[in-house]
Amino acid sequence: MKIIKKVKTMQKLSDSRRCEGRVIGLVPTMGALHDGHVSLIKKCKAESDVTIVSIFINRLQFGVNEDFSNYPKRFDADKKVALSAGVDYIFAPSEDELYSDVFSSFVDVKGVTDNLCGASRPGHFKGVTTVVAKLFNIIKPHKAYFGEKDYQQLVTIKKMVADLNFDVKIIGGKIVRERDGLAMSSRNVYLKSDERKRAPIIYKSLKESRELFFNGENSSFKIIKNAVNMIESQGFKIDYVKIVDLITLRDVKEIGSPALMAVAAKIGGTRLIDNIILKRKD
Amino acid sequence: MKIIKKVKTMQKLSDSRRCEGRVIGLVPTMGALHDGHVSLIKKCKAESDVTIVSIFINRLQFGVNEDFSNYPKRFDADKKVALSAGVDYIFAPSEDELYSDVFSSFVDVKGVTDNLCGASRPGHFKGVTTVVAKLFNIIKPHKAYFGEKDYQQLVTIKKMVADLNFDVKIIGGKIVRERDGLAMSSRNVYLKSDERKRAPIIYKSLKESRELFFNGENSSFKIIKNAVNMIESQGFKIDYVKIVDLITLRDVKEIGSPALMAVAAKIGGTRLIDNIILKRKD
Repeated sequence: MKIIKKVKTMQKLSDSRRCEGRVIGLVPTMGALHDGHVSLIKKCKAESDVTIVSIFINRLQFGVNEDFSNYPKRFDADKKVALSAGVDYIFAPSEDELYSDVFSSFVDVKGVTDNLCGASRPGHFKGVTTVVAKLFNIIKPHKAYFGEKDYQQLVTIKKMVADLNFDVKIIGGKIVRERDGLAMSSRNVYLKSDERKRAPIIYKSLKESRELFFNGENSSFKIIKNAVNMIESQGFKIDYVKIVDLITLRDVKEIGSPALMAVAAKIGGTRLIDNIILKRKD
Repeated sequence: MKIIKKVKTMQKLSDSRRCEGRVIGLVPTMGALHDGHVSLIKKCKAESDVTIVSIFINRLQFGVNEDFSNYPKRFDADKKVALSAGVDYIFAPSEDELYSDVFSSFVDVKGVTDNLCGASRPGHFKGVTTVVAKLFNIIKPHKAYFGEKDYQQLVTIKKMVADLNFDVKIIGGKIVRERDGLAMSSRNVYLKSDERKRAPIIYKSLKESRELFFNGENSSFKIIKNAVNMIESQGFKIDYVKIVDLITLRDVKEIGSPALMAVAAKIGGTRLIDNIILKRKD
């Protein structure tokens, strides 16, 4: 496994691998790698010849009052995780390598970013699409892998790729969970012991919502109300609980099939997100 | 010479040319090719192995009251010009091939687009950078050529490429002029006979401005005032006459060296632009 820090080095290497006929797969991350990332890496390895993980904490996607400065940095541990997962290259540029002092170009996807986290975190997805566009231009992958926990991010990247003709196939990876159901996230390390014990309520509320849906309930309002009550009962402050169309991510009142139910909620200083697909069994 | 209409066909062809070690040069155009385009094509041919001209009238860069629907369409004539200039491929997609009904992703360069045409034509450069990003992702050129008549466009594309890490070298081509000094433009065909006779005043005013500068005048105000009087005397309505920094494109009051003097002015329904570099002789 090799670590690459420079844009030009990465571009040249990718050009030569592509011309050798190798399929390049990219797993973009902000580091603090967990089993969710590992599952994306394994999927990538199974479907590509060269697996590249980028590690870059992207200031541009954090709001002014968010956790950019506290975001976990564990490059040494990440290297071990990547090595044992079989990664070929880590692309780990410095902040100066990606953002000059006079940086002023942005990629902005409208529509699918209006609702959910796009509404709660203004500018977040513009930061995400901008850095992902940069990574695609630097790493020139054939395929790129994104976790379904950030479902809106996955939809937004797919939209960017379709609209701007990036020659990259976007592939989603299933949410990986702790034994008690909590979705894996680099931010879970922020949780205090008591908060960590309460955190599984989010997935529990989503599973119960799916059961209500399976049992014939089609009203978003009723399903959401039940989930909100469950999550708040454990001391979480709700950011949003929504049921939305899978493609447009707009709220649906009557649930068609399939739909996405998504949650963002805060406990202490930690904001967690999770989601579930509501899809009738055939 | 071959004409390509589909995104996927173009991407595959460029991938295979790149992997054969060929240098791909792109000249992006909206068609209605004139000698300015031909000079870019010749420069491109001299510096590349494969010369691709894109022809696409990009609705996104026209304002609602601008000339999108009237913009000259001359594909048959363009094919002849391209063939005789030695073009290898014309990429000429349909509107539907580049813009779906639900298109909603944009590339936006701030700062260098604030002044000049960016101020007079809101949204224009966002349309330009968006389509050029798409063309870069489709054609995957090593080099791309843009005329210096649209100096702000050239600066904006260079900024986009630097900020978003496009692996493309941007090369400017000198302004090509008619014998009487009028800068070549696809829009010159709009000029009525009387307007066409008056149009050289723009370049004449720029040359006289440069003489004033060479003779020691450093005040933007005085040089601009003289040029405005000259241009207005021929019945033009001024959009702007400005002297700006070559990199930031912000107005300068005292002219350093070098600087850019740029004009946009309308006669009848036709808007013309032109510019000159103010640079002290060493």
